[in-house]
Amino acid sequence: MNIHPVTASAVESFSQTQDPRLKHILTSLVKHLHAFAQDVQLTEAEWFRGLEFLTAVGQKCDDKRQEFILLSDVLGLSMLTVSMNNDRPKACTESTVFGPFYVHDAPHYENGDDVSNGASGKACVVQGTVKNSDGQPISNAVIDVWQADDEGFYDVQKDHLKHAQARGVLHSRADGTFNFKSIVAEAYPIPMDGPVGTLLEATKRSPWRPAHLHFMIKADGYETLITHVFKKGDPHLQSDPVFGVKDSLIADWIAGKDGMTILNFDFVLNASS
Amino acid sequence: MNIHPVTASAVESFSQTQDPRLKHILTSLVKHLHAFAQDVQLTEAEWFRGLEFLTAVGQKCDDKRQEFILLSDVLGLSMLTVSMNNDRPKACTESTVFGPFYVHDAPHYENGDDVSNGASGKACVVQGTVKNSDGQPISNAVIDVWQADDEGFYDVQKDHLKHAQARGVLHSRADGTFNFKSIVAEAYPIPMDGPVGTLLEATKRSPWRPAHLHFMIKADGYETLITHVFKKGDPHLQSDPVFGVKDSLIADWIAGKDGMTILNFDFVLNASS
Repeated sequence: MNIHPVTASAVESFSQTQDPRLKHILTSLVKHLHAFAQDVQLTEAEWFRGLEFLTAVGQKCDDKRQEFILLSDVLGLSMLTVSMNNDRPKACTESTVFGPFYVHDAPHYENGDDVSNGASGKACVVQGTVKNSDGQPISNAVIDVWQADDEGFYDVQKDHLKHAQARGVLHSRADGTFNFKSIVAEAYPIPMDGPVGTLLEATKRSPWRPAHLHFMIKADGYETLITHVFKKGDPHLQSDPVFGVKDSLIADWIAGKDGMTILNFDFVLNASS
Repeated sequence: MNIHPVTASAVESFSQTQDPRLKHILTSLVKHLHAFAQDVQLTEAEWFRGLEFLTAVGQKCDDKRQEFILLSDVLGLSMLTVSMNNDRPKACTESTVFGPFYVHDAPHYENGDDVSNGASGKACVVQGTVKNSDGQPISNAVIDVWQADDEGFYDVQKDHLKHAQARGVLHSRADGTFNFKSIVAEAYPIPMDGPVGTLLEATKRSPWRPAHLHFMIKADGYETLITHVFKKGDPHLQSDPVFGVKDSLIADWIAGKDGMTILNFDFVLNASS
């Protein structure tokens, strides 16, 4: 397809941009955006409806809700970006989407503590080892964990709640091991009361995220790992609306000897380059 | 480039969409959006900055300001969409962007009236004929005209102003002619106090729209024409931030016999198919 004169003019308009990276991104953006419009022969009514939709997405955002990240998530852009930027050796734990529910000042816990802090759900133990791709334990890794309760809500979604629940920070021991008590993860729908929900409904897509536990693990000399552990057998593993599932991140919560439900999961970090 | 597995999953996620046009648009959108991200190898920080930018664009919109249309304008998407949807025989007047300043209930005038209604600027007369591509006059065409004053503001941008200025609706006579008094169009900058302004500054682009007069002309049996008449000699004709200028739409405001400044412009409508 020949380049449209308007596309050529729009590309040329960015020719005086001094930041070479910004110039490269905007030039590519204009070409792909125009190629999309030409590909579908976008009508003026569709153009206007699209801009109305994007406006509504922006206006749904506030200090607790980021509808544009949610839109990026359901279009696969978030997971594509994660994948492109976290290409690691096969031995290392894979990354997945960060999600909107991380908080910076989660409470600190000792190994063995209960991070649920009153969140409703079935009690369980989570345990494992943080190691490198040679199998060597990584001590003092900072392990951030967060999850929804059994009604599908994170603590930050509950206006009345004044303290953290089902989230916390702990450190791996000298031998790389860690363990904590929490609640078993359950599936939950992404927020459907905004324009992204309207999009999922119009396209008959499932809003249900398969049950998962979030982790961010940092250690000196290693790349930060942002990932989930998904629950084996969850019926939504094949239809995650944000495309976050990877087979290597699916694990089972099993019955331990004392009747306690246990999740065992080891994390393998990639050395910083 | 091989299709990324996440792209394939995102495309597949729309497979149950019942509206075939929506399915086609979303499938194409996902492919082009992902191709852009792969093309520039978008980093996670750039992804986040982009979403912050789009959020700010949405939040700048209100009942008087549509920053997403402005963004579409400066990326050339608006003009591309206009061009794709208004491909007419060469004899017909070309279209250009609609712009955000049209209002539905502009005052009605008779031919010869002064539509400026107190707007500041140099007085002038605008006259011409509405005709079809065979040169036959079109009578009773509805001519909507609107423009900025000599300070670069449309009436709707002035909070204190309670009546319409420099806009109006009139009808062509039996012989297709029309004429009205108004003020000479002047160049003005697009709104720079929002995220789109930040984008233009970061890329060293001019915000100045070359002087122009807006027209929307409707007549039974003809396609509606939405266009501008641009002022010959304006220094901003080559750098219109919204890419609206076409050579055929440039005309001169000349000195008439009685010392009055006159713009002569004929409009040629395309018969409806």
